[in-house]
Amino acid sequence: MPPAPTDADWMAAAVALSQRGRPTAAPNPNVGCLIVQRGRVVARGWTQPGGRPHAEAMALAAAGDAARGATAYVSLEPCAHASPRGPCCTDALIAAGVARVVVAAIDPDPRTDGQGTARLRAAGIAVGTGVLADAARAAMAPWWTRQTRGAPFVTLKLATSLDGCIALADGSSRWITGERARAHGHLERARHEAILVGRGTLLADAPRLDVRLPGLEARSPKKLLLTRGGTAPEGWTAVASPESVAGVDSLLVEGGARAASAFLAADRVDRLLLYRAPILIGGGKAALGDIGLADLAAAHGRWSLVDSRLLGSDRLDVYERIRKE
Amino acid sequence: MPPAPTDADWMAAAVALSQRGRPTAAPNPNVGCLIVQRGRVVARGWTQPGGRPHAEAMALAAAGDAARGATAYVSLEPCAHASPRGPCCTDALIAAGVARVVVAAIDPDPRTDGQGTARLRAAGIAVGTGVLADAARAAMAPWWTRQTRGAPFVTLKLATSLDGCIALADGSSRWITGERARAHGHLERARHEAILVGRGTLLADAPRLDVRLPGLEARSPKKLLLTRGGTAPEGWTAVASPESVAGVDSLLVEGGARAASAFLAADRVDRLLLYRAPILIGGGKAALGDIGLADLAAAHGRWSLVDSRLLGSDRLDVYERIRKE
Repeated sequence: MPPAPTDADWMAAAVALSQRGRPTAAPNPNVGCLIVQRGRVVARGWTQPGGRPHAEAMALAAAGDAARGATAYVSLEPCAHASPRGPCCTDALIAAGVARVVVAAIDPDPRTDGQGTARLRAAGIAVGTGVLADAARAAMAPWWTRQTRGAPFVTLKLATSLDGCIALADGSSRWITGERARAHGHLERARHEAILVGRGTLLADAPRLDVRLPGLEARSPKKLLLTRGGTAPEGWTAVASPESVAGVDSLLVEGGARAASAFLAADRVDRLLLYRAPILIGGGKAALGDIGLADLAAAHGRWSLVDSRLLGSDRLDVYERIRKE
Repeated sequence: MPPAPTDADWMAAAVALSQRGRPTAAPNPNVGCLIVQRGRVVARGWTQPGGRPHAEAMALAAAGDAARGATAYVSLEPCAHASPRGPCCTDALIAAGVARVVVAAIDPDPRTDGQGTARLRAAGIAVGTGVLADAARAAMAPWWTRQTRGAPFVTLKLATSLDGCIALADGSSRWITGERARAHGHLERARHEAILVGRGTLLADAPRLDVRLPGLEARSPKKLLLTRGGTAPEGWTAVASPESVAGVDSLLVEGGARAASAFLAADRVDRLLLYRAPILIGGGKAALGDIGLADLAAAHGRWSLVDSRLLGSDRLDVYERIRKE
């Protein structure tokens, strides 16, 4: 027999479930929940599109009586505040008779922030916290970033040649990366609430910015245009500056160099997707313009490699902004 | 007991030995030789500095009587032409009484080119050929390139930020990459006969271009300056164009953008060393200028990733030029 799964093993499954609500759970956090009874999963849940039902509500409904005496694994502390849209999950867990609740991250929302776990404990339920908290926070990075920093979680996508060009000098950029890298880019679109480009890219490429992956067409995000002028074509929303993006938790900045540089100069980029094709262009359009860097020392220690993979003959490197909190 | 080594296993060791003669064996090929008697290595050899003794001569001298009846593994066909500097290795192998010779690559030098193996066979020695031939050729790429294409094997080194810059706009470039990447760069210098920079780099950085690794200081290569003017400071040799590099089999092009672009435009780069630091510069100096690329389609299919590794927080990707021969 294999060894019995640990709390961390069950929580890893709950965190994986939480990814299913990204970005559809927004503006609510994308949470995952697993209900385990005598070593077996009896129900699973994740935050549904629009943010309701919550992960715990979905899992408890699926579990029915099997929740009594069970352990619930939740990637975020159950909410402790009632809402017109439904009862709070803390009360629902108590009512269902679960014996134990294991929580990854404590909810930073001041309406919960420890009150969920306190109420569970007061009801006689065993509570564990902090299990895979970092992984759970990373899985809900967009919501977490808005909660804790009041800003959307911004991913910057760059697709370059080995020498860092995003186009030839004449502007042609089809194609630098291959099919697999471009398909991966569409998957990233499906994981974001909004995509932003600058006016130059809008005029030069007239990008559709939709998700062209079978089954995910309906996941095409909102389209934002970074423009000082304030006007945008139909179907687009004008945004005057990186600081003024509102109403979304996750934003994918797709280009061009001017928009990318504006977000970097404002230190509003949390994650870099670097797709790189094994080609040399030479004298092409640079990926970035001025980002306000004063000297080389200041450039170091800001980005940490979190993923690296080959997509066909292209390489994808994913970096995250190192922020001291 | 582990399984008995195969011919390919022994040859892999001979090819590894051949690397010891790089670049010191030049202008002779860097060859490796292993002599095996009843499943045991009785002697090893590799081409000595300046090209003599040859690998076989070194191994046979070390083996002495133990070579009688043994198998010799040689990464390049033994030479069949006598030289004022020593007897040919084919005759030496026959005289030593080896029973079998296994060869990786056939010597493209018309003075040997199959005659070495033919004479061994005529003397009653069993001969195998083509074992790890590609690996053996790769290990002596500089010599092989001059033999078959009449040009030196050129490695281009680029050290860039993630956005492909080699310096800030003001020219400062110390440091983009970290200590481990720079140490690796010095190791690459030690593996080349000559290093080349352009006049801009010479004036801006006054590079020493020496090998600053303990024990390898004496391996500092010749210094070439790419310059139309034709004059070079003491200790340097002026080179007017990528096509006019002569007298070396292996050349490392270290910078700057103009020299790199000249070699790429002339299609004289065989290998790319791309050191990339996890920093963004934005609006800095591009790694390359115009390399004569007409359209994006022409950029594809030219470079193949052959190695990728992390050096501290920097990444080194090694690409080789794909040439249809």
